[in-house]
Amino acid sequence: MSSSEFSIIEEFFTFRSDKGYCPILGIGDDCAVLDVPSDKQLAVSTDTLVENVHFLPGSDPELLGHKVLAVNLSDLAAMGATPAWASLAITLPAIDKAWLSSFTKGFFALAKEHSLQLIGGDTTRGPLSITITIMGLLPKQQRLTRSGAKLGDSVYVSGSIGRAGLGLKKAQLDISDIADKDLSAYLKPCPQVALGKELLSVATSCIDISDGLSADLSHILKASGVGARVWDEQLPVAASVRRYMEELGDNLWPYSSGDDYELCFTMPEQVSAHSQDKLLAYGVTKIGVIEEEKGLKIETKSGELLTLDKGYDHFDA
Amino acid sequence: MSSSEFSIIEEFFTFRSDKGYCPILGIGDDCAVLDVPSDKQLAVSTDTLVENVHFLPGSDPELLGHKVLAVNLSDLAAMGATPAWASLAITLPAIDKAWLSSFTKGFFALAKEHSLQLIGGDTTRGPLSITITIMGLLPKQQRLTRSGAKLGDSVYVSGSIGRAGLGLKKAQLDISDIADKDLSAYLKPCPQVALGKELLSVATSCIDISDGLSADLSHILKASGVGARVWDEQLPVAASVRRYMEELGDNLWPYSSGDDYELCFTMPEQVSAHSQDKLLAYGVTKIGVIEEEKGLKIETKSGELLTLDKGYDHFDA
Repeated sequence: MSSSEFSIIEEFFTFRSDKGYCPILGIGDDCAVLDVPSDKQLAVSTDTLVENVHFLPGSDPELLGHKVLAVNLSDLAAMGATPAWASLAITLPAIDKAWLSSFTKGFFALAKEHSLQLIGGDTTRGPLSITITIMGLLPKQQRLTRSGAKLGDSVYVSGSIGRAGLGLKKAQLDISDIADKDLSAYLKPCPQVALGKELLSVATSCIDISDGLSADLSHILKASGVGARVWDEQLPVAASVRRYMEELGDNLWPYSSGDDYELCFTMPEQVSAHSQDKLLAYGVTKIGVIEEEKGLKIETKSGELLTLDKGYDHFDA
Repeated sequence: MSSSEFSIIEEFFTFRSDKGYCPILGIGDDCAVLDVPSDKQLAVSTDTLVENVHFLPGSDPELLGHKVLAVNLSDLAAMGATPAWASLAITLPAIDKAWLSSFTKGFFALAKEHSLQLIGGDTTRGPLSITITIMGLLPKQQRLTRSGAKLGDSVYVSGSIGRAGLGLKKAQLDISDIADKDLSAYLKPCPQVALGKELLSVATSCIDISDGLSADLSHILKASGVGARVWDEQLPVAASVRRYMEELGDNLWPYSSGDDYELCFTMPEQVSAHSQDKLLAYGVTKIGVIEEEKGLKIETKSGELLTLDKGYDHFDA
């Protein structure tokens, strides 16, 4: 750690919080030291966001600070884990204190909401990119994997699908009104951490929708060795997205637009009324059923069956 | 995770090892799930290497795969932790299977040596950079911090100082004979993991030398609230480095050349003969003493006292 890096860390990254799981040793040594409670397991995920690939050049740093953490929290949500710690590796073309100040403002506001502690990281010089490794806690033996979907299970999604995809289109057109719900879904996603924890005892499988519903649901199907039928009419789609699909002449567009950071999960048909009520309060929608025949089929209003597995691909973009 | 990313992971990153701490759930879901033994604490560190900043463009990918892991293992060594798990975030301009194959060969060869398990990561498109978050295990209550150096403690270093710095100069001159010990120190450092574990019960403070001995020892001094005197004559410097210093006319050059990835540590003067013998087998050298007066002083052969705290700085480079 160089002396200028040291002063950057002192100035911007030493947000202290008494809530959550305080590290035994935090930022400022060769390693952080953490105490994982003996009745818990550790869930770990890593995500990188690169300028020009995952976010537009000149993106608002405060929103970016929120989003890069939200993307990582979404992975913990998909596992049903409670956020505990994160490390933040940030590569910057040059020290820009105003940028860092805004970025960390967005990052720490969301961290605080989830009682997440920043325990370390690295600041380096280079083309702008951010990598977070996030750590959460799970009760021993419990987790939400992609591989547990069973024949006859119902398929659910949270939130509204395609909104973030449309938000990206709007951002590319330089629309910047963050009150716009599509733009907000793209720039300031709300990771479904509380829903994930609720699902831990009832869902058979879960994934977060980052690359598009069809690609992500297909990961569940492949890992579980099953297929699914989704009823297109049931898909929760906002009026604005519906209008965009009509302009585009593409009825299946929300299945492949990425970045929603909602959860897609499966659950046995017979879940207690108590659990059902709790889940409905999170705004989840039943969109389909797990079938024996492999692959993902979309059943349209007219009864036509369509196949689709394309999602957002970083290397094709 | 996109489908092409999925196939890259399948092809290159699913090295399995039965040695070490197997994850409960490994690569391929939203999170990895890990079981930290109840008598252990977790040590976590993150380091990023960026092309053109931390390594030269066109670097041999196999050596780079080794080095990026070695740099991270060195942080665990400085804490006295036993390597357990790592996540690897790699940003690449394009999929280059030959490059990936060599990179992972270097990475996994070193991982295997340390029974380290790769538990996840991210592959993204963009300018070449690599971020590793490494996790190691420590006996509860034990760790090697920067803040424990005490008045009268002896100051030690492992290995030979300045060799990697000279190796960088040679690499910049397109010298590529990896049998050259300076070049090898720069391109293929050996993290002092076994020494770090040995130090856990005897050293009062420890840091790895990444930014240069004077900068890194100064971190110990600042964190411990003490000063140090280093006897220049005692500094272990290879003949090749000595010749380079003479050419340069800079007698203090090895104190500020970075990338050595050796350990600098302090220890009470009175350590049992048994411990002393064990440590000497690791090739450590006593170079100085902890004093009350703050700051780092270098005492030359002639008795002159010099002050120096400059090290390698990523943002000044």
